[in-house]
Amino acid sequence: MQSFGPYLLGFVAIGVALFGLNTARKLFRQVDAVEVDNEKVADIGQQIQDGAMAFLRAEYRVLSVFVVVVAGLLVVATASWQTPVAFLLGAISSVAAGFAGMRAATTANTRTAMAANRSGAGAALLVAYNGGAVMGLCVGGLGLLGIAVMYMVWGHSLDSVQYISGFGMGASSIALFARVGGGIYTKAADVGADLVGKIEAGIPEDDPRNPGVIADNVGDNVGDVAGMGADIFESFVGSIIASIVLGATITASTSGLMFPEGHILTSADRATLMALPVLLALVGFGSSMVGIASMNWLKNSEPAGALRNTTLIGAGLFWVLSFIVLGIFGFPFEPLYAVIVGSIVGILIGLATEYYTSTDKVLGVQTKAVQRIADASKTGPATNAITGLAVGMESVFLPLILITIGIYWSNHAAGLYGIAMAAMGMLATVGVTMTVDAYGPVADNAGGISEMGGLGEDTRKITDSLDSIGNTTAAIGKGFAIGSAALTALALFAAYSSEINRIRLLNNSTEGPLSLELTEPLVVIGLLIGGALPFLVAAMTMTSVGKAAGQMVEEIRRQFREIPGLLEGDPNAKPDSARCVEISTTAALREMILPGLIAVIAPVICGVVLGPAALGGLLAGATATGVLMALFMATAGGAWDNAKKAIEQGKIEGEKKGTDAHSAAVIGDTIGDPFKDTSGPSLNILIKLMSIVALVIVPMIA
Amino acid sequence: MQSFGPYLLGFVAIGVALFGLNTARKLFRQVDAVEVDNEKVADIGQQIQDGAMAFLRAEYRVLSVFVVVVAGLLVVATASWQTPVAFLLGAISSVAAGFAGMRAATTANTRTAMAANRSGAGAALLVAYNGGAVMGLCVGGLGLLGIAVMYMVWGHSLDSVQYISGFGMGASSIALFARVGGGIYTKAADVGADLVGKIEAGIPEDDPRNPGVIADNVGDNVGDVAGMGADIFESFVGSIIASIVLGATITASTSGLMFPEGHILTSADRATLMALPVLLALVGFGSSMVGIASMNWLKNSEPAGALRNTTLIGAGLFWVLSFIVLGIFGFPFEPLYAVIVGSIVGILIGLATEYYTSTDKVLGVQTKAVQRIADASKTGPATNAITGLAVGMESVFLPLILITIGIYWSNHAAGLYGIAMAAMGMLATVGVTMTVDAYGPVADNAGGISEMGGLGEDTRKITDSLDSIGNTTAAIGKGFAIGSAALTALALFAAYSSEINRIRLLNNSTEGPLSLELTEPLVVIGLLIGGALPFLVAAMTMTSVGKAAGQMVEEIRRQFREIPGLLEGDPNAKPDSARCVEISTTAALREMILPGLIAVIAPVICGVVLGPAALGGLLAGATATGVLMALFMATAGGAWDNAKKAIEQGKIEGEKKGTDAHSAAVIGDTIGDPFKDTSGPSLNILIKLMSIVALVIVPMIA
Repeated sequence: MQSFGPYLLGFVAIGVALFGLNTARKLFRQVDAVEVDNEKVADIGQQIQDGAMAFLRAEYRVLSVFVVVVAGLLVVATASWQTPVAFLLGAISSVAAGFAGMRAATTANTRTAMAANRSGAGAALLVAYNGGAVMGLCVGGLGLLGIAVMYMVWGHSLDSVQYISGFGMGASSIALFARVGGGIYTKAADVGADLVGKIEAGIPEDDPRNPGVIADNVGDNVGDVAGMGADIFESFVGSIIASIVLGATITASTSGLMFPEGHILTSADRATLMALPVLLALVGFGSSMVGIASMNWLKNSEPAGALRNTTLIGAGLFWVLSFIVLGIFGFPFEPLYAVIVGSIVGILIGLATEYYTSTDKVLGVQTKAVQRIADASKTGPATNAITGLAVGMESVFLPLILITIGIYWSNHAAGLYGIAMAAMGMLATVGVTMTVDAYGPVADNAGGISEMGGLGEDTRKITDSLDSIGNTTAAIGKGFAIGSAALTALALFAAYSSEINRIRLLNNSTEGPLSLELTEPLVVIGLLIGGALPFLVAAMTMTSVGKAAGQMVEEIRRQFREIPGLLEGDPNAKPDSARCVEISTTAALREMILPGLIAVIAPVICGVVLGPAALGGLLAGATATGVLMALFMATAGGAWDNAKKAIEQGKIEGEKKGTDAHSAAVIGDTIGDPFKDTSGPSLNILIKLMSIVALVIVPMIA
Repeated sequence: MQSFGPYLLGFVAIGVALFGLNTARKLFRQVDAVEVDNEKVADIGQQIQDGAMAFLRAEYRVLSVFVVVVAGLLVVATASWQTPVAFLLGAISSVAAGFAGMRAATTANTRTAMAANRSGAGAALLVAYNGGAVMGLCVGGLGLLGIAVMYMVWGHSLDSVQYISGFGMGASSIALFARVGGGIYTKAADVGADLVGKIEAGIPEDDPRNPGVIADNVGDNVGDVAGMGADIFESFVGSIIASIVLGATITASTSGLMFPEGHILTSADRATLMALPVLLALVGFGSSMVGIASMNWLKNSEPAGALRNTTLIGAGLFWVLSFIVLGIFGFPFEPLYAVIVGSIVGILIGLATEYYTSTDKVLGVQTKAVQRIADASKTGPATNAITGLAVGMESVFLPLILITIGIYWSNHAAGLYGIAMAAMGMLATVGVTMTVDAYGPVADNAGGISEMGGLGEDTRKITDSLDSIGNTTAAIGKGFAIGSAALTALALFAAYSSEINRIRLLNNSTEGPLSLELTEPLVVIGLLIGGALPFLVAAMTMTSVGKAAGQMVEEIRRQFREIPGLLEGDPNAKPDSARCVEISTTAALREMILPGLIAVIAPVICGVVLGPAALGGLLAGATATGVLMALFMATAGGAWDNAKKAIEQGKIEGEKKGTDAHSAAVIGDTIGDPFKDTSGPSLNILIKLMSIVALVIVPMIA
């Protein structure tokens, strides 16, 4: 092993990141150049974009207060200016990625609809994909840029490496608020619009008469694009930071096969381990760009395959290039085994969750879960709900086992460092996986716009087909998101524990190394409290959706009642969509505060009052139940949704749209809405944010 | 401190236990002597008793195979004959308590109805209470008897104390099967009878035309009496066994204030700590008998107060007597502080869960949770379900904090031993708390029998009032059940870890003391798998209820269709109740096997394949999520139930029976049925059974 020049590596990474961001700019121009020559489409698109950007601005205004206050507190808590500065940079990068992606997505949605209308499926696919790619390249590029800067300034030196955790904390904070706020926004609008529109008034989804439809379409962008982008940005930088901190702190006994037992790690060893994550992120981002570019050649092949192939090209290239680069520069190979273990486990988790949420065969095995829910709908909403909840609870087991297998083998290869590397394996090609993820809501939105803009049956058919591909291809992305959240949280937790010991050693503390023995009552107390936090946050976010949806229902009912001719379709009667957008915005901003604060404050209080051992327990407990609850809620929600779709598509014998079983399935789907789009995804971020807050406050509590 | 003659203590305990069992026999005679001079009531009562006893016999027949096989395996696993013998005795004692209590409850139900009909509320209260007291005295008496025997034979000596865990494992195994089987039985019948009877056919609850009504009433006994009895029996002996094993194995550093740091525990110290739990159980059972007897003087006071006062008399006497007895015999007082902490925490947990499930004020604070669910019902079943789930998730937090406070202070007082003592504090007066718990289903059944037997409005009013008291007073019992399950599981977990170290030391093993560091990947792997098991078991039991209820629905529909005149009320048309009883029985017996086996086998596989550290993690993870899920499911179910009742009782403005909001609330209630009566309660036992299995197999894996 040899040390690698940190500045050279940093500058190369910055260069590649900037190249990627410039590509994003070019792709955006390309998308923007597609002409929108339908006035109605342009108008609707403008309303959606205005609503979405207005929400983002309002959200970031609220968060700027939070960010400034927390930065101030960090000055006190860490007795440094570096951590707060890193925190601010992390937050700003996440915000920038969110803005850019949102702008692109709300530009690409109308263009996709127009391309489908004018030039057919291939052109529409390319526009939607490139819209997603702007988000993917921004998330990957800004992540790599931030990490490279952090690495060059503080992250390559053992004396200052602790400051970079601030960057992760900034990204995680924004991510949690964006996920919770976006999730509340989108589901309040969705549930509200559906309850009055589809069920009470009996008008179709996305009908322009419904005042909640614009808010619903804004919500898709706010929740799925901005929320998910912040989420993945945070995962990406979180896994890299965990790797770097672990590289700086692990001992030979926790490094798996990498170092022989008893070896004392030299500073050259540590420099290698701290450089490796940056190098892999760089290679991963480069490979992603190739994957994204390959869409230009694949666009006319079968669309689902094209989407999948861009991901596979990116991932395959990443593996091959990593082997070559690591070999050339004399890095150890064990971490790469962990990376590969992580990728494989991520793919398998994706397949496992797909097994529970799909009506089709998965790897040749006929799935049954959705069928069970659809069958249970025949005896009413209660049995539908019971079965959906049971399916969700059951579905946690297989992914959990896969995660533990991932932990086992990545730890075998490279110890605790390997666990962080396994998470990196799922996230290194974030540029292309994020592209595919962001493609989904663009295609979904394009469908809604075609419907509202009256672009006709043929266009709608194309956008529907583009939309349905997105759902299938997202499975792998989902597996990566869940698996990487669990592994990143564990890696951060390990980093927290190593960092406590390192600081104690540095300060010649009289306290011995931190004991996180499960027989210590304080550890158990922390474990139990930590375990309860995901339940509390899930409850709060579900309650918020319920409250906000209730307000939305009342407003839509009022408009149908008070605006003459609206429900009858009088062309002069215009719904007051702006009012609905405002309700969702206000509710989301108000309701996101408390869950976000809990995530930041709980570790601090626990660490200060009960000490670092209890905080360690808290993190472990929160990670365990957080992963379980996130899986439970996401899968149950997805399965309910698809059970309803299965009935609508005539896949369930004797049932179709409008039967009692279908009504029961619609109820199940509505229960699942906050499960899968608000509470579930929030928990993935919650556990990482708590871990990184703990890591940041180590100087205060060690 | 002085050693206490173990044989003297044992014989006194046996004497008191036998005295209590004899009292139970007398009370049973007293209840049985109440004349049933109404043919219809006698017939219905007979059907219920026959159904219940037939189920118990069938269940115990299935379990006898399991018990014999496991006993055989234990011979191999523990390389001893003592553990398997203790296991058999534990299982047999639990079965005996179940049989006796069931017999009493199914005798008292008709007698309560007749007493209400003939002699009014006071007499009916006494009959129902005494019926419950038979169960209470059997559970307490058989528990004390078994523990006393175990203590005299093996439990007082450091060389053989490990064998007594077998007794706990026997009791826990029967308890889990009884809870799961009983829970599936009762909810399949309840959900099935309600779905067809109340919703489809529009006939009232407990209507004799409904073929599922007898099965429903049998189910109340099978689930609430036998299931709960086995559950509490298991908790009681589990907490005592954990205390004794910890007394034999703790070191001064894990004994709180009891011993100064660095003190080496003498065998006299250990003898004291091992005798203390038996002594407290003895005092507690004696105090319970006084509490039960006090009902003779209290029966004509206000019934709810009378019930509560018998509990308080028992508990108060227990505290006072314990202080005196401990003082006389020179025992340390620190464990008693832990006992008192446990009692207080148990009561507070009861109040906290009541806060989330009651419509009335709790300690002067107006509750809101049930109101929120009832309000959400106005916008339909989906919002009802979302709100109920949110309430359930939210409700875990306060009890969890209370449990951690209990852990903190009981550990402060007497270390890990103190945690076991805190659990004992909630369970020592099990004789009287179980009486109050078993009173509930007796009164409930009496109501159903009055309705079916046509005893008239006045009688029904009395039985309804007796029933509603039972629900309120059960809150404290519920708090004790949840709190003690968590603390007992933790104490058993601590015992497991100490026992591993003791055995390693004895065998001069080259392995050091067991490390359960949360940074060890194997511990984390165990933690995650353990955390997933409660989700899996909850999913299985919910699925089983759904399946069995489906069969019941079809059978009841068939009978209404095929038996001429049945639905119209033709007196010659008799429903085939036996067929419904059979469906519930078969389903319960078939479906209880797998969850039960998982609980027993999972720790063994984990311990053997991944080793004792992973098994430690598994227990901690299962305890954390098991407690959380049990609280979530129990509270959500109770809150849904009471939201429906609040609408029916006109407590929700503008709503009553028959409105859309009421229908939505009925759906929520049905979702909650398996939550609160099948899956939730099963999880409390699951975590203890897994812990005790781990403790038993220590010799195999240490």
